[in-house]
Parts: sequence; C-alpha cells; structure tokens
Amino acid sequence: MNRLAVTPRTRVKRAPKRAAFERETLYAIIDEALICHVAFVENGEPRSVPTAIVRIDDSVFLHGNRSSRMLRALEGGLACINVTHIDGVIVARSGFHCSMNYRSAVIYGKGEKIGGRQKRAVLDAFVEALIPGRVADVRDPTSQELRATSVLRFSLQEASIKVRAGGPIDAEEDYATPIWAGTIPLTVTAGKPIPCERSLPGMTLPPYVRDYDPASRGSSGR
Amino acid sequence: MNRLAVTPRTRVKRAPKRAAFERETLYAIIDEALICHVAFVENGEPRSVPTAIVRIDDSVFLHGNRSSRMLRALEGGLACINVTHIDGVIVARSGFHCSMNYRSAVIYGKGEKIGGRQKRAVLDAFVEALIPGRVADVRDPTSQELRATSVLRFSLQEASIKVRAGGPIDAEEDYATPIWAGTIPLTVTAGKPIPCERSLPGMTLPPYVRDYDPASRGSSGR
Repeated sequence: MNRLAVTPRTRVKRAPKRAAFERETLYAIIDEALICHVAFVENGEPRSVPTAIVRIDDSVFLHGNRSSRMLRALEGGLACINVTHIDGVIVARSGFHCSMNYRSAVIYGKGEKIGGRQKRAVLDAFVEALIPGRVADVRDPTSQELRATSVLRFSLQEASIKVRAGGPIDAEEDYATPIWAGTIPLTVTAGKPIPCERSLPGMTLPPYVRDYDPASRGSSGR
Repeated sequence: MNRLAVTPRTRVKRAPKRAAFERETLYAIIDEALICHVAFVENGEPRSVPTAIVRIDDSVFLHGNRSSRMLRALEGGLACINVTHIDGVIVARSGFHCSMNYRSAVIYGKGEKIGGRQKRAVLDAFVEALIPGRVADVRDPTSQELRATSVLRFSLQEASIKVRAGGPIDAEEDYATPIWAGTIPLTVTAGKPIPCERSLPGMTLPPYVRDYDPASRGSSGR
C-alpha cells in the first residue's frame, strides 16, 4: 500500500493541509535521518530519548545496550517515534507568521525484539545508514558485541507525515509592507574529516568519508 | 545554582561518563536549538511533537495554537522535553564503535500557561530566537494573533545533559587495524536566502538574514 492509512492517533489535526500520505515520502524522511526521538511511557510518565534509527523495507529498527531502560520499555510497549528535518527559516512580514520549513514523521508501534541472522543484518544496516560503505571495511562483530546489543523492530503500519515547504505565508494586508521577506534554507553539512589521534601512519581517507553527504545517505542502496 | 541537581528521573544511567552538569552548558544547548521534541502522555499513550523552544533565564517556553492538543495536555501535565544536536559522525574501526558526537538535554516539567505582558514578551523572544534582529523590523502582533496563541512556561529545575565529543573510542586490539578512522564534523549551515515571490521591488536583504548563522543565534543577547 503506497498511501499511509489515517488512524485516530495519526490524524493531523494542526495544519492538516501540511499532512502528506505517500509512503515514499515517509521512507525518504526516515532514510535521511541520523536520529529519531522515541517517546514512551514509564511509570505513567513521558520519557523521550534521541537514538539512531534505520529502515529496512516497511520496518524501522532501534538498538542499544541490552539493559537499556528504553529498549525494555519498548519491547511490547507502545512507542511514538519522531523523525524531523528542519529545512529552512521562514522570514515573514510579521512575527506571527515567522516559521520553519520542515519534514516530519511520526510512527506509532510496539517493539519486537529480533535476534539471530536478522539482528546481525540490522546491525550492519545501522552502520551503513550512518556511514554508507563502512561495513565492507570493518571486522565482523564479536559474539560479545552481538550479545551486548538489543535490536527492536517496529512496523511502519501506523505513521503520519507533515511537511512545510515554500516561502512565507503572510496576512494579506502585510504583503504591502516594504520589508524583505523570504526563506533561509538550512542544510546539515559535513566538515573536513578529523583523523583519529591513534591512527596508524599513512592511512588513506576512504571515498565514503571524503565525499560524505549527510543529506544523501538515505538514497544509497536501501 | 550553577550545577544541575540529579533526580531519579534525570540520572544518566546509559554511559554516565557522558553526563554533564553545568547549567551554562544546558543553556547553550537550548539556545542553539531551533526546535525541541516534547513528549507527553495522552490516554495512557506516548505522544511526541517537534516544536519551537525558547529560553529566558531559568525557564523554557513552548507555544502554539490555543486549541492544540499538545498545549492542553501540557498545561499542568508532565512534559519530557528533548533538545539534541548532532555534531559529528564517529567512523570507528569496528561497526560496534561507530557512533555520533552529540549534545543532548532532557527537561522534565509541568507547563504553566502565561498571559498578558509576559506572553507578549515571550512571543517576541520566539521570533528573536529564530531570527535575531527580526522583531525590530516587524509590526506588533494583533490582538487576534495574541488570542490565537497559547504560551506555556516550564522551569529548568529538573534537567540533565549528555555530551559526546572527540574521536573514535575503539576496542584496544582494533587500533592496530590498518584502516582510516576518525570523525566527520556535522554542522547546520544556512544557504542563500530566497526572497518571497510576492516581495515588493527593491527590498534590501537585512544583515541578520544575509549573515544568518544557525549555530550562533543563541549567543546573541539572551
């Protein structure tokens, strides 16, 4: 199904004109993200943690230390996973209409612990999502590393997206104000790679580090 | 008090060596943020919403449409507010140790609705936090705009911060692997401003738009 179904939880009530429903858009928002924020309920209280996220087909995965409170709470518990990109600052003609361009996804689901070969494949996918090309250059995980890490799967069955793009939308009478208005685009950009202080002499910078582009990682291969 | 107090909710249990306790660091993390993610509990379920945040002294403020579910749930209800900056990608010698540099804050508190002059001042602060210098150039908010917007205050009494900086931390035996390892710094950068399609002819780009720097907004004036 290429269109996201709307549930009572995922209906966009604020600014419904910004809701979007294409599964491909959802995938693109997730694949570009380095992290998500995952919210859950613990002792009746809200908790929220920033953590890495990776998508494979119609699932997303979170991982962490096997004794992490977050992963224990989410194994079978409901998560509200947020992925947000800020794409620009809207410089409007009134303070009220100053705003931001963004692409945002919310995913609701219960975590399902995975193991064995699937877990191993997902851990590789986490490395590839962060640094496409790296897995081929690093050693295999040890059994101790595999044991130390838990991986949870969440289905993308219940998700919604909201997107703001374009320029300022001002009160009609304000367009006549003689003042600059517009959009300042924002992007996440990579700086010059810094070699590890304990690097061996003569190591070559791999192309996937030299040409690292935070915004286009998602498009490669998944 | 310049040092953050630790409560059962804010004790950093995962990677406690990354916890930090300086109130100035907390302020800097918040002031650089364009948005936070605010988590709350509704009908016993987790909810999380990305939204603008502004700090004044030892409080942070969230705002939105007065009928927003989020603001209604947070007025007197507990919020878990997350602010996260991703500062770099850690290219380690094993997949297990690949990671990210980050600065992250978590704030717990109940929202208190504010009005009158204080609300008006905070709404200006939202505009200044997003685009320092803009308030002097725009008209005053109308009474309708003020009525349409609710503002909640949260005290910074219960907050924790976690910071990862520096290069890869690899398994001791992996430092001998002949492979490049290091850090790819990430920053949010502003692109060329795009004028509004409905701009009047001859508008001059204001210096605060021309020189907009997403990372140093927080340092100006607050």
